Amino acid sequence: MTPDASRFLSDLHYLRSFGTTGTGVVRRAFSEPDIASRDWLAGQIRQIGLTPHIDPAGNVFGLADGPSLLIGSHSDTQPEGGWLDGAYGVIAGLEIARAAAEAGGPAISMVSFQDEEGRFGALTGSDIWAGRTPLAEADGYMSTDGIRFGDARQGLAHLMQDHFVDPARFTGFLEMHIEQGPVLDQSGDRAGVVTSIVGLRQVQVTVTGQQNHAGTTPMHLRRDAFQGAVQVASLLRERFANVVTPDTVWTIGHFRLHPNASSVVPGQAVFTIQWRDGDADRLDRLERVIKDVLAEVGTETGMAVAATQLRNDLVPVPMDDRMQAALRAAAEKHSPGSWRSMPSGALHDASNLSHLMPVGMLFVPSIGGISHAFDEDTKQEDLVLGLRILAEAAATLAPGRG
Amino acid sequence: MTPDASRFLSDLHYLRSFGTTGTGVVRRAFSEPDIASRDWLAGQIRQIGLTPHIDPAGNVFGLADGPSLLIGSHSDTQPEGGWLDGAYGVIAGLEIARAAAEAGGPAISMVSFQDEEGRFGALTGSDIWAGRTPLAEADGYMSTDGIRFGDARQGLAHLMQDHFVDPARFTGFLEMHIEQGPVLDQSGDRAGVVTSIVGLRQVQVTVTGQQNHAGTTPMHLRRDAFQGAVQVASLLRERFANVVTPDTVWTIGHFRLHPNASSVVPGQAVFTIQWRDGDADRLDRLERVIKDVLAEVGTETGMAVAATQLRNDLVPVPMDDRMQAALRAAAEKHSPGSWRSMPSGALHDASNLSHLMPVGMLFVPSIGGISHAFDEDTKQEDLVLGLRILAEAAATLAPGRG
Repeated sequence: MTPDASRFLSDLHYLRSFGTTGTGVVRRAFSEPDIASRDWLAGQIRQIGLTPHIDPAGNVFGLADGPSLLIGSHSDTQPEGGWLDGAYGVIAGLEIARAAAEAGGPAISMVSFQDEEGRFGALTGSDIWAGRTPLAEADGYMSTDGIRFGDARQGLAHLMQDHFVDPARFTGFLEMHIEQGPVLDQSGDRAGVVTSIVGLRQVQVTVTGQQNHAGTTPMHLRRDAFQGAVQVASLLRERFANVVTPDTVWTIGHFRLHPNASSVVPGQAVFTIQWRDGDADRLDRLERVIKDVLAEVGTETGMAVAATQLRNDLVPVPMDDRMQAALRAAAEKHSPGSWRSMPSGALHDASNLSHLMPVGMLFVPSIGGISHAFDEDTKQEDLVLGLRILAEAAATLAPGRG
Repeated sequence: MTPDASRFLSDLHYLRSFGTTGTGVVRRAFSEPDIASRDWLAGQIRQIGLTPHIDPAGNVFGLADGPSLLIGSHSDTQPEGGWLDGAYGVIAGLEIARAAAEAGGPAISMVSFQDEEGRFGALTGSDIWAGRTPLAEADGYMSTDGIRFGDARQGLAHLMQDHFVDPARFTGFLEMHIEQGPVLDQSGDRAGVVTSIVGLRQVQVTVTGQQNHAGTTPMHLRRDAFQGAVQVASLLRERFANVVTPDTVWTIGHFRLHPNASSVVPGQAVFTIQWRDGDADRLDRLERVIKDVLAEVGTETGMAVAATQLRNDLVPVPMDDRMQAALRAAAEKHSPGSWRSMPSGALHDASNLSHLMPVGMLFVPSIGGISHAFDEDTKQEDLVLGLRILAEAAATLAPGRG
């Protein structure tokens, strides 16, 4: 089977038209453009000879008969979304399933999950389908504009089936996605075979010092919460250096001072530390470094330095070995010497599906590393190369290979 | 002349009653309690045989005949004020002027300045009286609750004279004040002779990095504005150490990140650096250190690190040598071995008056260093000791000593 690049690009641009504004694409889950796009997708699925199935969560499946390999991603977007985030992997699934069906095999199904971008939950559609959140619970999710998931999904009720597709019919899941980061763009590699979706932990640190007059309080009598926070941040830079790999990332992205006035010695600093890595062990070791640093700064400064764990539920998800091997071989064939293995620093539906079946992921470059923004883009030749690599790997992995 | 401690304490408590709430004293400039307290003060002045003069800015003078030494402070408070901040120095002036008048000399006048605590401007009353701000300009000052100074002062119009007291009739100004800091409380000294009111400078620093996804952006490709700010703060700690004295203070009290989200690499950090010292030269040297550090971090990180000067108008104000000497001698007489010389880290009306005449200041301890708060307090024996020291010094300094 051979995917048709121009058909693929044409479909990708057609999907873009649902929700396109003057500046970009806005297709929030269960919005009018999203519902229209899912209706269109079901029509395309029917045309290529697969069976459309829209489940109660709004996930759109295009089903091949019998056991099959599932390929797809999501087609909802961020509030200021780009045209490729999700859509790229969905249309690649559609075109590869079409080519396979036309060629009489292998058996390939496709999917577009719902609400990956978190209008209601986060990865809501695949979360429900993977049985990680009951539909009844998700129905209570409220969007920031005050709409319940349970009400919103009624907008697609006329197209929905009343049951979920049985995950057991799929032998594995392949998701292709734009990288949404700068690694491929900077290295010049044209594809990335994902090794794992990194795990994430997050704590909130509170440094409690003593609020005081910034003119009348001598330095040696101060317990300045900002200076305590600076000591924490400086020590983390030093100590993390012994534990991290080039793939580890950590961020202090949220920071708040009280009372936050230029003439007052800060009495309290509250900030988040978030760290991500593909290795659960390394996440542990980084957490121990943080705890040691907080204790050390507390002892040294006489301030209370306490941490609250905000997240430890996102464990690293390694990609399936066999799927990685197939993707590597296909990448080397279509882009020799110009691809790399890499972790995914962002979450994807594949995380949820890893609980059901072997999963693999392929990245293509994001120009300038830009995503979740209207100017998100990828070179057309890279979009097509990704399609070729994915189709090649799918042919190896799918049952009843053609 | 000998001031009467119980009369002094009684008057001080009586002034406290104007604006006392359940928890503390709120007597904002030109509020009803402030106007009532100034009316009461004018009555007290008349009773002790001095001439009351309320000028167009709301400053209340009690005038002795002929050339005299002026003693006083302010009687307005912060929105959450304590009972001693300002009031202590005003009632001390009243009692010493009374004792001097009763004894037939020396010639001592007293004053309560208006709006020291900045409901409208800052040190507004003494600022206008010292000719630093024209009354017409101050009339345009707006309070945070939307009232113009020009309108507010009409509330006292029935008691006001239409002209200002001529500063030339005063041979000097003594201001006694609670320290509003922890130095005396911590050292156990019972009085502080002020050497200078420190100067203040302030810059606002903006570190501009690159806003990015905290999962997909590798550390080596980040330009993280928070980390840039941490580098600035750490280097300042190091480099300032070579320039500061124990009396120098510096503060990063206001800090803001953009977009301030735990999963986003910060694109911008904006923060203030404020530094105070009694020596203008040292203020300059600290400013050069800051400029060097900002340039260094900019070069090292590739981020834009820029500073805007917010304040350089508050120059250090040295206290008059002769007045310091008189206060030191009086302190040693009434509290031998248990007083110290020290700078004032806070601004006072004496700063404005230094442009008109020799000025001197005396501090008494603030329990726990607390001020601008309802639980501001000073031991009664320290309040009385301050009165004795100030009267002793005034007797030495005032014309026609009795």
